Amino acid sequence: MKIPGWHDVLAAHDRIAEWVHRTPVLTCRAIDRIAGCEVLFKCENFQKAGAFKFRGATNAVFAMDRTLAGKGVATHSSGNHAAALALAAANRGIKARIVMPETAPPVKKKAVSDYGGEITLCAPTLEAREKTLEEVVARTGATFVHPYNNFDVISGQATAAKELIEEAGRLDIVMVPVGGGGLLSGTAITVKNMSNGTLVIAAEPENADDAFRSFRIGVLQPALPPNTVADGLLTALGPLTFRIVKEYVDDIICASEQGIIDAMRLVWERMKIIIEPSSAVPLAVMLANRELFAGRRTGIILSGGNADLDNLPF
Amino acid sequence: MKIPGWHDVLAAHDRIAEWVHRTPVLTCRAIDRIAGCEVLFKCENFQKAGAFKFRGATNAVFAMDRTLAGKGVATHSSGNHAAALALAAANRGIKARIVMPETAPPVKKKAVSDYGGEITLCAPTLEAREKTLEEVVARTGATFVHPYNNFDVISGQATAAKELIEEAGRLDIVMVPVGGGGLLSGTAITVKNMSNGTLVIAAEPENADDAFRSFRIGVLQPALPPNTVADGLLTALGPLTFRIVKEYVDDIICASEQGIIDAMRLVWERMKIIIEPSSAVPLAVMLANRELFAGRRTGIILSGGNADLDNLPF
Repeated sequence: MKIPGWHDVLAAHDRIAEWVHRTPVLTCRAIDRIAGCEVLFKCENFQKAGAFKFRGATNAVFAMDRTLAGKGVATHSSGNHAAALALAAANRGIKARIVMPETAPPVKKKAVSDYGGEITLCAPTLEAREKTLEEVVARTGATFVHPYNNFDVISGQATAAKELIEEAGRLDIVMVPVGGGGLLSGTAITVKNMSNGTLVIAAEPENADDAFRSFRIGVLQPALPPNTVADGLLTALGPLTFRIVKEYVDDIICASEQGIIDAMRLVWERMKIIIEPSSAVPLAVMLANRELFAGRRTGIILSGGNADLDNLPF
Repeated sequence: MKIPGWHDVLAAHDRIAEWVHRTPVLTCRAIDRIAGCEVLFKCENFQKAGAFKFRGATNAVFAMDRTLAGKGVATHSSGNHAAALALAAANRGIKARIVMPETAPPVKKKAVSDYGGEITLCAPTLEAREKTLEEVVARTGATFVHPYNNFDVISGQATAAKELIEEAGRLDIVMVPVGGGGLLSGTAITVKNMSNGTLVIAAEPENADDAFRSFRIGVLQPALPPNTVADGLLTALGPLTFRIVKEYVDDIICASEQGIIDAMRLVWERMKIIIEPSSAVPLAVMLANRELFAGRRTGIILSGGNADLDNLPF
């Protein structure tokens, strides 16, 4: 199990630069006052397809050699990775085959098909998703691009923190949310290479705390049935992301559901930008643990902006 | 009735530059595709106090001589001008006395008092507002800063279009929403001075179409009881703003309520930024009149971001 190195991140950044937005880093004095520290928000909610996932998907798609790429890519996902992979594949002019549970929200299915992705529906269980994907891959020869437990995906996600540090300069802490750990492990690789001494802290919903438990125990824990408003963080760490997390991440701290909802609303009201619930988890952790962050210059990656406007949690 | 000239706008911009945000100009390829033209959005939803109103209020407050300023400023408003004037006065270290209807939303009252404004409540009629304001002014010697029918306020609002053109370059059309006409008349002065040949088109809710009717007839029309989701556009043109509108504005076009709501949602979903309903009126006009805008490079000023998250229209 090879871990991406700094040269892999640099290569990924070169590879994807023409396809991804270099998203802005925003600050908000009102939130600084409330938090008691300086917070720099890297706005991946403004990324194409609405989330950082487009970085990893683009890197994976464009890193493939031409023969392999010709057979297309495939994945199972009901969320941001599905749309991101469909758009990345469209940009390369290859097919994306996406296995989605029948129960996925229509808006998510529409995003995938709008980008030209070919959807195969399946029963809403992990088993059905994996089995259907296997069939699709066997039938088409498409390459499976895992949403996070994938070398090239992690290298791509690592570029968000690279841009954050390039723009923000010295940070005491970098925080990201953790679900499957793609953004977290990529961020950790970048921070430890660009700014050793900066702490990497992951934020996880306490109602989906498998990464927290795995990190504490040192052994990969399965996701108990998660039940959180942060619907982008329902997945569990994989072997590769867990290995990187164990090696490079300084801490994982959990946030309450109400804290996540309050933090999300605070960003909407004060910054006038739309973030999805998963993006609010780091700020929720910060506001519930002020003593840890007091006076420390902290970068937060706002992971995505695909909030469901018909089902707001506040 | 003196109309602000270009030198007044330049002076206003110098005066307020250290106090206001130079807000970004954003583009969105998805909206360009939908609209069939290139749209550049000047994001005053990110302005301090959440709306362009802070420009005019700041200019009015800092243009006052020291003696006059010492007695403070006053206004009646239940909306963005109230908060903007309170913050501008706080920045100069003088008092702001704000007459608000008892029925104003608690969040609006809180914004004013958070900025240090002194609130006097009154009955929710224009008569009560004006009478209460007169009493406050008589008692305190404060200077009344009208929300739009005011030379310095108009000069301040004109600076948003100046920044837009400085950043965007040549535009075929500039669009803004119109309520009392402060933003519109300021924008028109700027456009005609910086970019003669660029059309200035105002967008008004058809359910509050007094400016449209006044413009067509050439005589100032009163606001019929307006009933629109665009709660920042309930006011009618004043004598000064109407004079400027007659002289410099090329057209006023109305938008339906459903069109405004759809345009607002489109901006939220595609740009991931929060705008209030009033800000969506120009885009609503554009999407209902595609033939007018096809292929024309159009700047739109997004007037504010103070949407009521507990009462979304969609």
